[in-house]
Amino acid sequence: MAADIAEQPEVYARLLEAGRAKAIAEVARKIAERGPQHVVFTARGTSDHAALYGTYLAEIRLNLAAGLASPSAITLFGARPDLSHALVVGVSQSGGSPDLTEVIKVARESGALTLAVTNNPESALAQAAELSIDVGAGHERAVAATKSYTAELLALLMLVENIRGMTDEVRRELGEIPELAARTMTGGQAKEFAGRYRFAARMVTTGRGYAYPSAREAALKLMETSYLPALAFSGADLLHGPLAMTQPDVPVLALVGDGPGGRSMRDVLTRLREQRADVVTVGPDGLLPVPPVEEKYAPLLEILPLQQLALELALERGEDPDAPRGLQKVTATM
Amino acid sequence: MAADIAEQPEVYARLLEAGRAKAIAEVARKIAERGPQHVVFTARGTSDHAALYGTYLAEIRLNLAAGLASPSAITLFGARPDLSHALVVGVSQSGGSPDLTEVIKVARESGALTLAVTNNPESALAQAAELSIDVGAGHERAVAATKSYTAELLALLMLVENIRGMTDEVRRELGEIPELAARTMTGGQAKEFAGRYRFAARMVTTGRGYAYPSAREAALKLMETSYLPALAFSGADLLHGPLAMTQPDVPVLALVGDGPGGRSMRDVLTRLREQRADVVTVGPDGLLPVPPVEEKYAPLLEILPLQQLALELALERGEDPDAPRGLQKVTATM
Repeated sequence: MAADIAEQPEVYARLLEAGRAKAIAEVARKIAERGPQHVVFTARGTSDHAALYGTYLAEIRLNLAAGLASPSAITLFGARPDLSHALVVGVSQSGGSPDLTEVIKVARESGALTLAVTNNPESALAQAAELSIDVGAGHERAVAATKSYTAELLALLMLVENIRGMTDEVRRELGEIPELAARTMTGGQAKEFAGRYRFAARMVTTGRGYAYPSAREAALKLMETSYLPALAFSGADLLHGPLAMTQPDVPVLALVGDGPGGRSMRDVLTRLREQRADVVTVGPDGLLPVPPVEEKYAPLLEILPLQQLALELALERGEDPDAPRGLQKVTATM
Repeated sequence: MAADIAEQPEVYARLLEAGRAKAIAEVARKIAERGPQHVVFTARGTSDHAALYGTYLAEIRLNLAAGLASPSAITLFGARPDLSHALVVGVSQSGGSPDLTEVIKVARESGALTLAVTNNPESALAQAAELSIDVGAGHERAVAATKSYTAELLALLMLVENIRGMTDEVRRELGEIPELAARTMTGGQAKEFAGRYRFAARMVTTGRGYAYPSAREAALKLMETSYLPALAFSGADLLHGPLAMTQPDVPVLALVGDGPGGRSMRDVLTRLREQRADVVTVGPDGLLPVPPVEEKYAPLLEILPLQQLALELALERGEDPDAPRGLQKVTATM
């Protein structure tokens, strides 16, 4: 897991190289040509959080309605939604989960434009979809996905920016990501906080907008590797109920970026302080620092120290982050 | 909270009376006339779980793609998605959260057919939408929503069945719901399990398909009233990662209905047993029993003993379920 985490700046650099960038731009061109009216993502686990990032990108950068489909409506209940005006995107590290492949097949039959975003271009999912993007993260050794997640994020961002029409400014900003990622990972803060959370019985993670998928993914990593029950909430939803649960003995990790999402977290932080919650912020001014970038890029960086935290906390607790109890790398659900 | 919970069979009966049923059928007629191509729900907290149920209904019963919109894309990041082919549904007890009203306004401006499902027909949300359904749950006294949630569920089900074309069979089955709900609530099992969970430090809830919203809502009620960190997963997502966290000291509440969703939970239960998790099933053959009904009706019933469990557990723990720490009844987020 440590090796997978460390590789991420390099994975970013590879995706941005001419060959892969061109392949993504070509997929974007075909999508733009078809002009879908809305976007439906389907994914599981970690990739579901990449897909969630995709919904924000589609809504904010493309002004397209976007949502996450639950495969079970199709695979268990036989729903056959009319997706003829939709772009349907399956996101999966392995591309091997039969339910996602089934959703893509049903969508394609109903006339949808289908796209697979996977780390395995030979997979059933990639074969089933009309279009396919290989995120090229390389073999992921650990069960807990890290570099395949961030590769999916960057591939989706590159796709969306190409559909929108790539600008020199965005191209330049994307080019800086590998170096910023390397800088984000050099701090020893993750190890320090792992010690602080050694005896935490639970955790809350929170963020808004683009940072919400990061909060979800951080919670999943903590659960998978450290068996720490971690609850992720959008900052707004936290105020609508679960705030009651935050107390001095419940650590909160709050993602606070440099933009509208981060600014909207101010109220949330104030309310958390009133509850005397133990809050650690992650972001440009955070206790877990992340370089200042526009919020659409932040998910590519802010998850890195949180992956490191999950790894370090597992080690602190005497767990083996490379072999989580009861999990396999490829999970086949229907 | 106890009084709100107890009123639910009566709330169901009122919604099914000719007057309210006719109002819902009239809204359904207008929606069917417009023939939207997809459905976008927007909601927060408990109502978000009713909206999630709505997405399953739209996909399975209407064969329409459906998803949950995150208000922040519109309210914070200025997204202006083209929703001209969409039905956009805001679900809210109070109808008073500014972000949902903003989403409905933006959607309406972009040409969407908009619908508010609220417990307050005078609310800003109901006023902003072209169409409006009053779920008529009456004044909800407790901060933790119970009867307004189930009223939203039934209103959405009645709406969808009317859009699809109400049949005598469905009308008859709906007519049985108030009596079945009353029967579901008579057991003392909730109190018994509250004793059993007195010292639980965390909880996992799980279900698939229509039961997934119930798992989410049960987890929220436990968090709001008993401050018990409760993690909800679809049965499939549980296998994709968080299963690692289930252990003998993590109680699992598994919703197992009588249909495709419940059958697909068998694998999940097997894997949980391998992990030696402490599993209590909720459903027709469950330790927390629910009358056998088709799965599309089950969310109207299976949440009732779980609301009772949340209430009883709060009392066991010496908490005041009527006044959760740090929460107000109407939460204004932007």
